[in-house]
Amino acid sequence: MTTLDHRLGEVATAVGATLDGLLPRARGPEGRVVEAMRYAALGGGKRLRPFLVCAGAGLFDLPLAAALPTAAAVEMLHCYSLVHDDLPAMDDDALRRGRPTCHVAFDEATAILAGDALLTLAFETLSAPATHPDPAVRSALVHGLAVAGGCDGMVAGQMLDLLAAEAGLDPDDITRLQALKTGALFTFSCEAGAILAGADDGDRGALVSFGRALGLAFQIADDLLDVEGSAAETGKAVGKDAGAGKATFLDLLGVEGARRRARSLADEACAALARFGDRGALLCATARFVVERRH
Amino acid sequence: MTTLDHRLGEVATAVGATLDGLLPRARGPEGRVVEAMRYAALGGGKRLRPFLVCAGAGLFDLPLAAALPTAAAVEMLHCYSLVHDDLPAMDDDALRRGRPTCHVAFDEATAILAGDALLTLAFETLSAPATHPDPAVRSALVHGLAVAGGCDGMVAGQMLDLLAAEAGLDPDDITRLQALKTGALFTFSCEAGAILAGADDGDRGALVSFGRALGLAFQIADDLLDVEGSAAETGKAVGKDAGAGKATFLDLLGVEGARRRARSLADEACAALARFGDRGALLCATARFVVERRH
Repeated sequence: MTTLDHRLGEVATAVGATLDGLLPRARGPEGRVVEAMRYAALGGGKRLRPFLVCAGAGLFDLPLAAALPTAAAVEMLHCYSLVHDDLPAMDDDALRRGRPTCHVAFDEATAILAGDALLTLAFETLSAPATHPDPAVRSALVHGLAVAGGCDGMVAGQMLDLLAAEAGLDPDDITRLQALKTGALFTFSCEAGAILAGADDGDRGALVSFGRALGLAFQIADDLLDVEGSAAETGKAVGKDAGAGKATFLDLLGVEGARRRARSLADEACAALARFGDRGALLCATARFVVERRH
Repeated sequence: MTTLDHRLGEVATAVGATLDGLLPRARGPEGRVVEAMRYAALGGGKRLRPFLVCAGAGLFDLPLAAALPTAAAVEMLHCYSLVHDDLPAMDDDALRRGRPTCHVAFDEATAILAGDALLTLAFETLSAPATHPDPAVRSALVHGLAVAGGCDGMVAGQMLDLLAAEAGLDPDDITRLQALKTGALFTFSCEAGAILAGADDGDRGALVSFGRALGLAFQIADDLLDVEGSAAETGKAVGKDAGAGKATFLDLLGVEGARRRARSLADEACAALARFGDRGALLCATARFVVERRH
């Protein structure tokens, strides 16, 4: 087992425990929505975005515990986006992380509300004093996550994705789609470590560049898995995106071209970390892992 | 025209202009979601919650301009909740503020995303330096709005409301439903003025008590309008809540009992403002208006 595998597992366990502590317990009939939130957020997943928060903070010698609430908030936002994207009116997916999607396990109304509540809890978490003692840091984290998640970020990406299935988009639109839908949250996840640590603009900018290249590399790798992987490996239906006429980088670059592009983006991501010297090794290994992963 | 009418109109206009400035302009194909956000947020409405923010801040001599971004953020959250509550999977409403609901005017996926983006923009707005120079105040505003809007607040209220339509709830559940669904945001709206002004705990607590009584009074008045009003007056279908088997205070108290309860809650709200002397007159008049309004 490599250092990265070990560290990924360690952080995933810690993030799961943090989420479990931050999510309320179901009480009363309205507890149904809390059950759905817990189902969506505690159902496994690689916890890659929270890992980036923790690894970014680690660059500045912050202990894992100091990054965990922020890491959990980023994962809440990610999980909300999965719950809403899976809805019948959106991508209409029945399987996620190897289990029925939230609206299948509960119902559509409950899934909409659970997503809303996870999104809201992300901001409640970031603004809580336990996340960071300095309110200026908390406020910067809230602002950064909101910009990444909103109508100039992930929501815009999902809107483009839905339109792509209907009407087709040109290559510029597809690149923008992926930068918004996946890249914005990857970038914020990396930047969050620098915000938590009060890093200077140069270090913060380096993490932003790293996150941007990594996000694009991740999305291309995801598209490759969609055509090459098996449902057992990816935990979701295979070939679904291509089947739905969704615009992916494979349409633009072909399988081999896409693989080359993903590797070159991983190189680019690692190059952005040059200023951190050896301390950047863990994040650089993460970029290689993201491109080569089989699930 | 009374002082209150004049002031309500003045604030509604200023809040509309602030929302117009804070909402992005639609660009590119993804601009569809921005159009839907603007449709949902700029479509009129009484702007009662933003008015409470501004009137609460006014108690401490804050100028209107200092309260407007916070007031607009509260309205964004309110508008998101209307868009999602109106969805086919939820209350399935076709008419809102006298116009087609967001999912009818656009489509279901766009409406879900527009709601998500309005909720996110509320937190982006509250955490922006333009909202208040002190990051501790911004962080407190984010936290307060998140608690009011989330799974211990509005989302829990909507969950209970959906369950009420199916299964029926006992009187305690109905009281909790209304406190969560309507009361939480009314209470935060009133408290926000005190947070913006850096008011002491006593003043802040008084505004919380006022907001709590006002929220309940508002909901009872709304239930009365639902059975007594006309669609032209309320801008939505009449008798719909009763027809859907929704649990309201009218089931518990009858029409006359409900009217008496609403008036006594308005008295209670005004009594909570005693410590402010004459300066509380505008908010007290608001409580009377809320109970007696015909639309």
